[in-house]
Amino acid sequence: MNINEAAKAAKAASVHLAAVESKIKDKALAEIAKELKDRIKDIEKANAEDLSRSKEENLAAPLLKRLKFDSAKVLDVVAGIESLRKLEEPVGKTLSTTALDDDLLLYKVSCPIGVIGVIFESRPDALVQISTLCLKSGNSVILKGGSEAKETNRILWEIIKTASDRAGIPDGWVQIIETREDVGGMLKLDDYIDLIIPRGSNDFVKYIMENSNIPVLGHADGICHCYVDDKADIDMAVRIVTDSKTQYVAVCNATETLLVNEKVAAGFLPALKESLEAKSVEILGDERVREIIDVGTATEEDWKTEYLDYKLAIKMVDSLDEAIEHINKYGSGHTDAIVTSDKNKVETFMNLVDSGNVFWNCSTRFSDGFRYGFGAEVGISTNKIHARGPVGLDGLLIYKYKMIGHGNIVDDYETGKKTYKHTKLDKEFKL
Amino acid sequence: MNINEAAKAAKAASVHLAAVESKIKDKALAEIAKELKDRIKDIEKANAEDLSRSKEENLAAPLLKRLKFDSAKVLDVVAGIESLRKLEEPVGKTLSTTALDDDLLLYKVSCPIGVIGVIFESRPDALVQISTLCLKSGNSVILKGGSEAKETNRILWEIIKTASDRAGIPDGWVQIIETREDVGGMLKLDDYIDLIIPRGSNDFVKYIMENSNIPVLGHADGICHCYVDDKADIDMAVRIVTDSKTQYVAVCNATETLLVNEKVAAGFLPALKESLEAKSVEILGDERVREIIDVGTATEEDWKTEYLDYKLAIKMVDSLDEAIEHINKYGSGHTDAIVTSDKNKVETFMNLVDSGNVFWNCSTRFSDGFRYGFGAEVGISTNKIHARGPVGLDGLLIYKYKMIGHGNIVDDYETGKKTYKHTKLDKEFKL
Repeated sequence: MNINEAAKAAKAASVHLAAVESKIKDKALAEIAKELKDRIKDIEKANAEDLSRSKEENLAAPLLKRLKFDSAKVLDVVAGIESLRKLEEPVGKTLSTTALDDDLLLYKVSCPIGVIGVIFESRPDALVQISTLCLKSGNSVILKGGSEAKETNRILWEIIKTASDRAGIPDGWVQIIETREDVGGMLKLDDYIDLIIPRGSNDFVKYIMENSNIPVLGHADGICHCYVDDKADIDMAVRIVTDSKTQYVAVCNATETLLVNEKVAAGFLPALKESLEAKSVEILGDERVREIIDVGTATEEDWKTEYLDYKLAIKMVDSLDEAIEHINKYGSGHTDAIVTSDKNKVETFMNLVDSGNVFWNCSTRFSDGFRYGFGAEVGISTNKIHARGPVGLDGLLIYKYKMIGHGNIVDDYETGKKTYKHTKLDKEFKL
Repeated sequence: MNINEAAKAAKAASVHLAAVESKIKDKALAEIAKELKDRIKDIEKANAEDLSRSKEENLAAPLLKRLKFDSAKVLDVVAGIESLRKLEEPVGKTLSTTALDDDLLLYKVSCPIGVIGVIFESRPDALVQISTLCLKSGNSVILKGGSEAKETNRILWEIIKTASDRAGIPDGWVQIIETREDVGGMLKLDDYIDLIIPRGSNDFVKYIMENSNIPVLGHADGICHCYVDDKADIDMAVRIVTDSKTQYVAVCNATETLLVNEKVAAGFLPALKESLEAKSVEILGDERVREIIDVGTATEEDWKTEYLDYKLAIKMVDSLDEAIEHINKYGSGHTDAIVTSDKNKVETFMNLVDSGNVFWNCSTRFSDGFRYGFGAEVGISTNKIHARGPVGLDGLLIYKYKMIGHGNIVDDYETGKKTYKHTKLDKEFKL
């Protein structure tokens, strides 16, 4: 199928998928889990093809590691599906009920968004995770994985399709596309696709945001900051900054820039340098930082850079206000932490830093759907509308208003024959 | 100020406005209401200039009527501000609380979106309504009104600015722009502007949606349907369709296409024709409709047309499924109603019609923020993300995650020293 046909089929299926009962969706999730387990051998065979081809093509070692999808990984995703299956039905929840009049009830009810286009990196787990999240939330999904994982992705898709067909999910709800041309085509299909979730390199995400009218949920950069205040506990600050920088460097919630208050710099920076150098972190500092510790020079360019590496830029600031201004200017609205014992400063920091996640006395690395307890994660969003921060099932839902009348017409209310009551009720939607 | 300076100032103010206390915002609303009342004479004078210039320029009579802003209109908007002031503070609400661990609490807290760009039609009420909604929700706003209302808009803006300055609202939060060039410039400023709300002609809204990376909240078309099922009460159907079409024709929630089940057509159409012709509605029908009533011919083009006039297209359908398919194909996802006594059909209709508002046995004209009881309306959205249907204050809010730790680092949890608890708590955010 080309992308037009795929998107059209996904749209048609989405209308019916929105109305599929919980028990059918949960049955499909169980069938998918079973089929994955039953076909571990086939999956491993497909993955071996991808691995050997990618080795020949000299794919970098960390990427090869992410590409590997063996029986242990299959059992991991199966466990994920089992927890997803146990989550409450997210569709059809009554969010509010208002009686406009005694015989005119307005319900706000959660429903799926429609068709989600997902572009993901080499890790094949993402395919299973995202398509089962879409299924649970009643959305059709169009999947585009990395070409290095194409055999693995194809068999995983085929398994999900076969198993969900068997459970009675509308045909066409899960689509796979494989070429870059199809991605280009997808960006134009705003009649069929309601939301794009790109999980790839920053440049690619930016490209998508700039080249489509379809809303995009995600983040291009992850320039996270720690601010060490003059009222910080030095030992705690060293631990938090070290964890924020080094716990896993290749991810969006790792800290890239440290801001340190001038009053605490002399006591803090040497201890931090020791801790970071034990983890082989390269440190760059501005002039005032370099007067205290012997490190490389950080320039304006560093404040804008997401290293994704064992590298940290440090800037000295005179005040909390300067720290906040720096973060709002150079940060990416992702995750920023303050280390201090002063609650007033925390309040100012949390209110004025315009980021999806603002932390007090803990590592920026906590900013993650699994750590937040969402069970599963669609991605992390730096958007200012719809969904922000780590996004779970909720990000795949919207609502519709359902109104039940008894022949009511507006004219009766405009001419004063009747008046609106607008009584809030605690009542679930029911026909 | 040019648009770049205006947007930059609005952005800078928005950071501080997000943290302004309720009592200051409510004081500002009271000051604005007072200043509007005190300066009714000045407002009427400015409005008289707009009216006389527009008359000279031969502005159409209905537009002149909308442009008029006299003391009665001022008192209306003042009453609106008073109700807005009494609404609960929307910013800083705790939406959920999770203990990731005993000493690591995650709060999801409502906050403003940031900077809203609003483009509105000739009616100057919109300026006051929207800017006070933005103030209450802690957002900066950039206003662009119709050029025919420029003197009125300028004085209203100046009043809002002066009164809110006096109450201590951060300077720069409310900006006005006046040229088409500035609108073009605004569409490019995604670094400063977080959301655009266009309330103008359909073509203009479409132009904006296609020419900006900034999210747009609104609707281009309002092609609403009534479906009269074979189990409909004929009298009720005539009343509902007549109201949906004629109660006010120039608005997005007026019905443009009627779908009628073949089994009820012969009994229903003549009665409807009589009712509509009494209101001077021009009726177009497909071939099967024209076999029953003597009306003009509707073509494929009519199914796609928002008349905004005393004109209705009628199509006969064989089944509920055909009606749903027609609505999802030609509708604009705005508001669609079914008239029937069969609950099973209602359930199918409400689940499968992919519109923001799906109604049973009542007029499509009810689809409106004031009628829904929102107090005030930002606009109506046919988006599939963030906010759908009539949008009140809620549509101007998002959330941020605030986490309070005690030196917690991710490494302790990854290495098994500690484990996540993920306990849901019923606890308001507090430092």
